[in-house]
Amino acid sequence: MEHLNLQDPVFATYVIASTLMILKAVAMSWLTVVRMMKVKGGFRSPEDIKKTPLNPEPDPKQLEKNESVERIRRIHMNDLENLPFFLAAGFLYIFTGPPLWLAQVLLYGYVVLRLLHFFAYFTARTHDTRATLWTMGSLILIFMACRTLLAALGY
Amino acid sequence: MEHLNLQDPVFATYVIASTLMILKAVAMSWLTVVRMMKVKGGFRSPEDIKKTPLNPEPDPKQLEKNESVERIRRIHMNDLENLPFFLAAGFLYIFTGPPLWLAQVLLYGYVVLRLLHFFAYFTARTHDTRATLWTMGSLILIFMACRTLLAALGY
Amino acid sequence: MEHLNLQDPVFATYVIASTLMILKAVAMSWLTVVRMMKVKGGFRSPEDIKKTPLNPEPDPKQLEKNESVERIRRIHMNDLENLPFFLAAGFLYIFTGPPLWLAQVLLYGYVVLRLLHFFAYFTARTHDTRATLWTMGSLILIFMACRTLLAALGY
Repeated sequence: MEHLNLQDPVFATYVIASTLMILKAVAMSWLTVVRMMKVKGGFRSPEDIKKTPLNPEPDPKQLEKNESVERIRRIHMNDLENLPFFLAAGFLYIFTGPPLWLAQVLLYGYVVLRLLHFFAYFTARTHDTRATLWTMGSLILIFMACRTLLAALGY
Repeated sequence: MEHLNLQDPVFATYVIASTLMILKAVAMSWLTVVRMMKVKGGFRSPEDIKKTPLNPEPDPKQLEKNESVERIRRIHMNDLENLPFFLAAGFLYIFTGPPLWLAQVLLYGYVVLRLLHFFAYFTARTHDTRATLWTMGSLILIFMACRTLLAALGY
Repeated sequence: MEHLNLQDPVFATYVIASTLMILKAVAMSWLTVVRMMKVKGGFRSPEDIKKTPLNPEPDPKQLEKNESVERIRRIHMNDLENLPFFLAAGFLYIFTGPPLWLAQVLLYGYVVLRLLHFFAYFTARTHDTRATLWTMGSLILIFMACRTLLAALGY
């Protein structure tokens, strides 16, 4: 198997792709905060309309759904449905000893596709564009999981 | 500790269980897509009712909640609440050096329970059936996490 | 790199922090169940108002949202947005060979901040308190991911 250290090029490829995806997911939390502060709304908890230094003029309308915030929440949800499984599948995949070029195509390819998916969703492109980008990423994930499953079964 | 390679039977057991659970979670995304295409609805973004090749006859009603789609989303959400933590807990658990039979009972047992949970939820069995299956899987997860925590603490 | 075994103090630190966070996330599922049983409501599936031994007097109102249940669901959702990425980032971070004291500050610090965040959310403290605790934890996560990314890139 591959050695789990950052000098190993396949493992380093995985670590680069993974940390980029982790930062991408965490960025969605921050982007949600930015949008909530911008529209001064889109909050979800009753206590969020208490008067505080960060919310000096509370208003019950702040608890209503705000589409610009909801869009980020949907993008974030899509990340939660995909990225934890990519992180796990990519990690286990490297134990199958893939050639470096293939690991790079799959792992970096996934990162690029997810970033394009983000921009398509963020700028409200058509469902077809978004779905195509999601599908390509999902197929990479499925390929890695199936390849790893077969290797673990001895094939 | 166990050796992290696919020839090690305990690690291979973990990899088989994990990749099956990853594929199960990803399958929920695809099943959501299948159901949305079947009912031509259950969409969530305003841009999804733009006219496109995949949606030639858009209708604002397509943005309404559709129970057959929502059911898959709930099942998916249940996966997101459980599977990432199973993937992590199972991985760390193998560092406690469990006997192979016990690793197989816990890891494959979890997989079987989650698949039964899926069928119970998918076919709308009573809450009691679904809850029993979820509970048994959750107890496996809790056992593995507690056992690993104690081992890391030196017990 | 660090040796991946429970005798290695840095890895043991990670394992302790991770299993605590896994148990914390799983506890949210159980707490949701406890609250649903207490208020006999907050259910989400149509079949949950069938008469069963666990629900002897079903009522359509049981499918309405219940704030005491929704609060736990929001806390749980916040866990899903953060903990899987902490588990992955913390694991990869140990390959950068951090000194033990720093690993302890970051990993145990994160655990403490998330537990404080839970109590702030659970007891409905102001948004400012909750947001401050979340932000500090998120910065730890971002630091670990960035440090690991730079190390994998050779810096």
